[in-house]
Amino acid sequence: MRFAYPGYVAALLLAVAGVVHAAEPRARDLGIPFDGTPGPLDAITDVAGVTVGQVTLIEDKPDGHKVRTGVTAILPRGRDSLDKWVFGGWFALNGNGEMTGTAWLDESGQLEGPVMLTNTHSVGVVRDAVIAERIQAGGADASGYWWSLPIVAETWDGHLNDINGFHVKPEHVAQALREAQGGAVEEGNVGGGTGMVCHEFKCGIGTASRRIAQDGHDYTVGALVQANYGVRDTLRIAGVPVGQHLRNDRVYTGAAITGDTGSIIVVIATDAPLLPHQLKRVAKRAGMGLARMGSYAGNGSGDIFIAFSTANAGAAAGAPLGQADFVGNDHLDGLFEATVQATEEAIVNAMVAARDMTGEGGRYAKAIDHAALVRLLKRYNRYRPRGK
Amino acid sequence: MRFAYPGYVAALLLAVAGVVHAAEPRARDLGIPFDGTPGPLDAITDVAGVTVGQVTLIEDKPDGHKVRTGVTAILPRGRDSLDKWVFGGWFALNGNGEMTGTAWLDESGQLEGPVMLTNTHSVGVVRDAVIAERIQAGGADASGYWWSLPIVAETWDGHLNDINGFHVKPEHVAQALREAQGGAVEEGNVGGGTGMVCHEFKCGIGTASRRIAQDGHDYTVGALVQANYGVRDTLRIAGVPVGQHLRNDRVYTGAAITGDTGSIIVVIATDAPLLPHQLKRVAKRAGMGLARMGSYAGNGSGDIFIAFSTANAGAAAGAPLGQADFVGNDHLDGLFEATVQATEEAIVNAMVAARDMTGEGGRYAKAIDHAALVRLLKRYNRYRPRGK
Amino acid sequence: MRFAYPGYVAALLLAVAGVVHAAEPRARDLGIPFDGTPGPLDAITDVAGVTVGQVTLIEDKPDGHKVRTGVTAILPRGRDSLDKWVFGGWFALNGNGEMTGTAWLDESGQLEGPVMLTNTHSVGVVRDAVIAERIQAGGADASGYWWSLPIVAETWDGHLNDINGFHVKPEHVAQALREAQGGAVEEGNVGGGTGMVCHEFKCGIGTASRRIAQDGHDYTVGALVQANYGVRDTLRIAGVPVGQHLRNDRVYTGAAITGDTGSIIVVIATDAPLLPHQLKRVAKRAGMGLARMGSYAGNGSGDIFIAFSTANAGAAAGAPLGQADFVGNDHLDGLFEATVQATEEAIVNAMVAARDMTGEGGRYAKAIDHAALVRLLKRYNRYRPRGK
Amino acid sequence: MRFAYPGYVAALLLAVAGVVHAAEPRARDLGIPFDGTPGPLDAITDVAGVTVGQVTLIEDKPDGHKVRTGVTAILPRGRDSLDKWVFGGWFALNGNGEMTGTAWLDESGQLEGPVMLTNTHSVGVVRDAVIAERIQAGGADASGYWWSLPIVAETWDGHLNDINGFHVKPEHVAQALREAQGGAVEEGNVGGGTGMVCHEFKCGIGTASRRIAQDGHDYTVGALVQANYGVRDTLRIAGVPVGQHLRNDRVYTGAAITGDTGSIIVVIATDAPLLPHQLKRVAKRAGMGLARMGSYAGNGSGDIFIAFSTANAGAAAGAPLGQADFVGNDHLDGLFEATVQATEEAIVNAMVAARDMTGEGGRYAKAIDHAALVRLLKRYNRYRPRGK
Repeated sequence: MRFAYPGYVAALLLAVAGVVHAAEPRARDLGIPFDGTPGPLDAITDVAGVTVGQVTLIEDKPDGHKVRTGVTAILPRGRDSLDKWVFGGWFALNGNGEMTGTAWLDESGQLEGPVMLTNTHSVGVVRDAVIAERIQAGGADASGYWWSLPIVAETWDGHLNDINGFHVKPEHVAQALREAQGGAVEEGNVGGGTGMVCHEFKCGIGTASRRIAQDGHDYTVGALVQANYGVRDTLRIAGVPVGQHLRNDRVYTGAAITGDTGSIIVVIATDAPLLPHQLKRVAKRAGMGLARMGSYAGNGSGDIFIAFSTANAGAAAGAPLGQADFVGNDHLDGLFEATVQATEEAIVNAMVAARDMTGEGGRYAKAIDHAALVRLLKRYNRYRPRGK
Repeated sequence: MRFAYPGYVAALLLAVAGVVHAAEPRARDLGIPFDGTPGPLDAITDVAGVTVGQVTLIEDKPDGHKVRTGVTAILPRGRDSLDKWVFGGWFALNGNGEMTGTAWLDESGQLEGPVMLTNTHSVGVVRDAVIAERIQAGGADASGYWWSLPIVAETWDGHLNDINGFHVKPEHVAQALREAQGGAVEEGNVGGGTGMVCHEFKCGIGTASRRIAQDGHDYTVGALVQANYGVRDTLRIAGVPVGQHLRNDRVYTGAAITGDTGSIIVVIATDAPLLPHQLKRVAKRAGMGLARMGSYAGNGSGDIFIAFSTANAGAAAGAPLGQADFVGNDHLDGLFEATVQATEEAIVNAMVAARDMTGEGGRYAKAIDHAALVRLLKRYNRYRPRGK
Repeated sequence: MRFAYPGYVAALLLAVAGVVHAAEPRARDLGIPFDGTPGPLDAITDVAGVTVGQVTLIEDKPDGHKVRTGVTAILPRGRDSLDKWVFGGWFALNGNGEMTGTAWLDESGQLEGPVMLTNTHSVGVVRDAVIAERIQAGGADASGYWWSLPIVAETWDGHLNDINGFHVKPEHVAQALREAQGGAVEEGNVGGGTGMVCHEFKCGIGTASRRIAQDGHDYTVGALVQANYGVRDTLRIAGVPVGQHLRNDRVYTGAAITGDTGSIIVVIATDAPLLPHQLKRVAKRAGMGLARMGSYAGNGSGDIFIAFSTANAGAAAGAPLGQADFVGNDHLDGLFEATVQATEEAIVNAMVAARDMTGEGGRYAKAIDHAALVRLLKRYNRYRPRGK
Repeated sequence: MRFAYPGYVAALLLAVAGVVHAAEPRARDLGIPFDGTPGPLDAITDVAGVTVGQVTLIEDKPDGHKVRTGVTAILPRGRDSLDKWVFGGWFALNGNGEMTGTAWLDESGQLEGPVMLTNTHSVGVVRDAVIAERIQAGGADASGYWWSLPIVAETWDGHLNDINGFHVKPEHVAQALREAQGGAVEEGNVGGGTGMVCHEFKCGIGTASRRIAQDGHDYTVGALVQANYGVRDTLRIAGVPVGQHLRNDRVYTGAAITGDTGSIIVVIATDAPLLPHQLKRVAKRAGMGLARMGSYAGNGSGDIFIAFSTANAGAAAGAPLGQADFVGNDHLDGLFEATVQATEEAIVNAMVAARDMTGEGGRYAKAIDHAALVRLLKRYNRYRPRGK
């Protein structure tokens, strides 16, 4: 049996299979307090135009290998991303990871095409497949450079996934791009996050958003994470030292893998008009959300962040002389704070949405116990039920 | 009346004046829980060889201006810093500040001479004075470059200090360098930190350290901060949302200054043998300690960090072919975690040690109320009295 | 007919076919004056231990498409590169190109495995194939990270090659790695450089080296370039404005492609013991060799350089505490100058070794006319026959 | 006798003294061929609005010390620079030098106030004096940050100047700022360049410009250099290996100072509307002009470049939402090439305009011999008299 389907179909199938239930709680449903005001979906898709496509690959191979991986595509301008770049910037808090396309992103300030997330050993196939898709779609510019330097990032799912089986194929990339859509975003064991683990709990994809009103403008900041980082000891949720209490089923206890050997990719989207150097500043703030969770950005962790702005669609026309709006530097604090908040919540959402998984070599990762988490929030007087 | 004295004399005088009392509590004396194991002094001077000199300038001028500023000197190898560089690295989380000498630090990987901290408008005088001191000391190399590119960093004390009066003079620099010593480090309203404010509480200089045992080696990491950053709202101490409860005497409420307009300089010292690119990695982790406090690195904040290693003294001899020990990349996590922890505690130490101050234009800043802080720790079940 | 063979076999075959003749002249054979002293091979392989493997793909497909591409592998420690990293650093003068693996190279200072060169649209397949090769070879460390972030760089050969046909396959990567060897390095239309064009002349792979004696030590610096950059107008060779005289068969004259739309990858190897931050400095100097040729690093050009040191093999053992030799910063000038010189000569070697090629869509590129070049050297009094 | 006067007065005085003659030749007057089209002044002041002020300090002290130094101020928007920033970017090719204010320039993309050039040991006094001037001028914003992080760069004039005498004073800074003006710019032994030496010839300040027409727009690029770098051996002018022929009066022949121990600061101005990340790209190209001269960016050299755009004056108003024009990335090549050309010519202009100087300790530096240079140009068939 082989699965290869977008996130929403996976959700249906898994729901039928009893693995994921309808109306699963998200982090704030559990009473975890977060600062700031989320958008209606509390997702990166609250930023108008952003679409997300996810292909989840879960299969037990006849030869005993376990496929637990996938692909997540974030399209800054939806289908228009094929032809219209966005301003973007990136930052590596700890570069033990791959994000292709960053030399050009740094140089041009332009993010051209989608941001793709997958496992470490499938970055190459995803990268070339993005180019092939663009060629298929037609319209590549004559210089051949358009979309030729795709952004593909990764985290390592080898604990649960048969990562050396190279199970991600070009058709999965095509599917994730084709089926990307707005609306609610599947979280947890889906897409590129299928086999991921964070703070030694099962983890994966998570998302969140913030809305801010500033100087008469309303802006939205959205975060999407593929979270696979961190050790149990240091896990803090809303300031509560959760990792010091929940000691079950730790992952990094063997001789081979110790310490913070995972990674996290954070994608920040905003509709606030920001210039490339400002988006690099926004990307840096993702690391501050990560730090609130207790991360110290271990040597083995690829903590790499990318930010883009969907504003200035007209500037992306490639005219000899463009024009761009931008928020004045003195007016960025709200966006910075929103970035920290959205990143923090997206990580917790990934952790809360994930479900127990057994994979390659019989290894497994347990999801965090919701009830136990709520008990800890209460013990530390941080339980805030919705509406309270 | 004019004060210009090293930190320890200031302490005596101020103690006599009833401003600072003997055996003042530090952060962990209040029952604030911190992770990790501090060194004997819980100070940057736990790193053998590091000395600190501070000159505090507090004076009410006849013309009504208020001097509330000073200079702090950190000498990586004590007096030997005059002739022997250390490997170093730096990182700007948000570069709204000055740290001179960083182009050469980046290029050479060598920190030559001291790290100096002062107010924003005195960086120049301190810089040139460091060169003059080196010339006085004799022994400058023939090429003239030794010590010619000093490291001087700043935060802005214009809320309390007559910053545009340019009260720091070359002799204060000479004094801070001359009187630098090991042992306990004065904290709070001293040295470069005299007039500083953080999270809208009176703040200043703070320090802390961590010891780690790793692969048969014992290493120490020390942090010293000049803390002047942050808004009240987001202040977290040990995960407790302190800033949402302690609302008294906020500073940034006027029309002129809003948001996170301060800055923080973090100096990390270690005796672990690290290469320049590794020290840059360490410097980045200071920002994660800062993030734990609730900072989002506001646009107006100069959040700049520098790290150095006192190991490899032999390598600093300048031979055509040097030799350096270094911790393998796979063995850095303990040092990274210690950096986050020491930075976090140093900031809280700065806040706890500071005392109320009134200054320029009648403006003032209140120190955090220790008793109120303890009450909040208890309310959130985070109170950990020493020895418990 | 399908070719897939290492460079040296290609050379034999092509020699038989009359395309390449034995004892083809290199740049200095034509009387072009270069500064400095080359190694015995005047090639990157003068740096002991460095091996190079090249697979050249030239095929006229039945459907009319023209394959003109390939793969070049540079192994810093030959076969030991599988298990022993080298210190490395990189620099993007203009980042309109891809070099995967740079986030980790920056972070760790370690170049793990080979440096691979290919065409723009084949970076992905080469990257994943390098991982697959490492898995095949066995011995990957338990953490799974070893060789998981390969270095793969590219230039765009779409003028002559059916780049959208994706003709580079994993087996070509395996072959290039397997057959890599020391000794003379094939230049011109070979390996990753097969279809490349520079200054609107046919170009490709070139190499050169310099030996320097310094403070009692002998060091070698080697450069290997995949040269595909530049416009005709600005071409200077040994200071002679060649491009203003040789106006035949220009490439970028159509509407679609104008200006400097190519790229150049420069790989610098040295046996001098350098630390990572010093190798980044060396990498920067490659751009100065490029500038001597008349490049202005056009917007469309991916001018990306990587440098590594084969010294400190013992340090690569991954011990908790390593030890590394390093050249003092004050003693680097000879290495910097050698880097500029070797890069400059390697580019001219690529140009001189290349041969006319017709490819995709009937497009073609002419090699520079050796006789005409010699005439220009004489006209500008820069002709220096060997031994004179 | 003490001199302290702006460059133009110095020129008059020196002209009277027979040191500098009216209508002194510039580089292209000697028949040196340069590519591209200069502006009417062939100076940075061809960029509308840019003003330059220079104070030259030449004095033989009674105690025998020799003052040979000064200050050069470049004001991007003339007097409006006090209140309106320009977009800017910078790049250190080799960071053995100081340029203050770069952390904020990197972060904000804004260059606030002037760019100041002086000697290495006077950076501090110049920096603080710029702040003091701003305070004097009134209008500093309430946050105190405006102009508080000035840009001050340096090169080391200790060969000729009594650099350890700290002869630059705040009043010289005030004067340079006050007297800055458009029009022709004094070159050679003036301002910050008074005591500078390059390629072991007397050197100093030089400037040049290029005009380009592009996509219906006319843009100007101007360069101003304070040139103090380089060894004789590698000097190339217009491709002619000048340094291998003109061997007289070399400077770096003693034991104390060998190799490339000087520095060069390059300031690039343009009226083309460029965003901060694009100006960083422009700044990088200054290094390619430097490379054409034969520099290899020696370890001892502070090769630091800054670029700014005078366009977008409206954006500098600090509104919550700004709007900026920008040249599309695909249309930057003309600006890049102009930057390389203007930098190259500005350096040669500095060398050609300089005059012999004797200074501290009886040390001296000879200006390049114009007649000998012309003979070499002819020998290498590169002599191009004006109008030919």
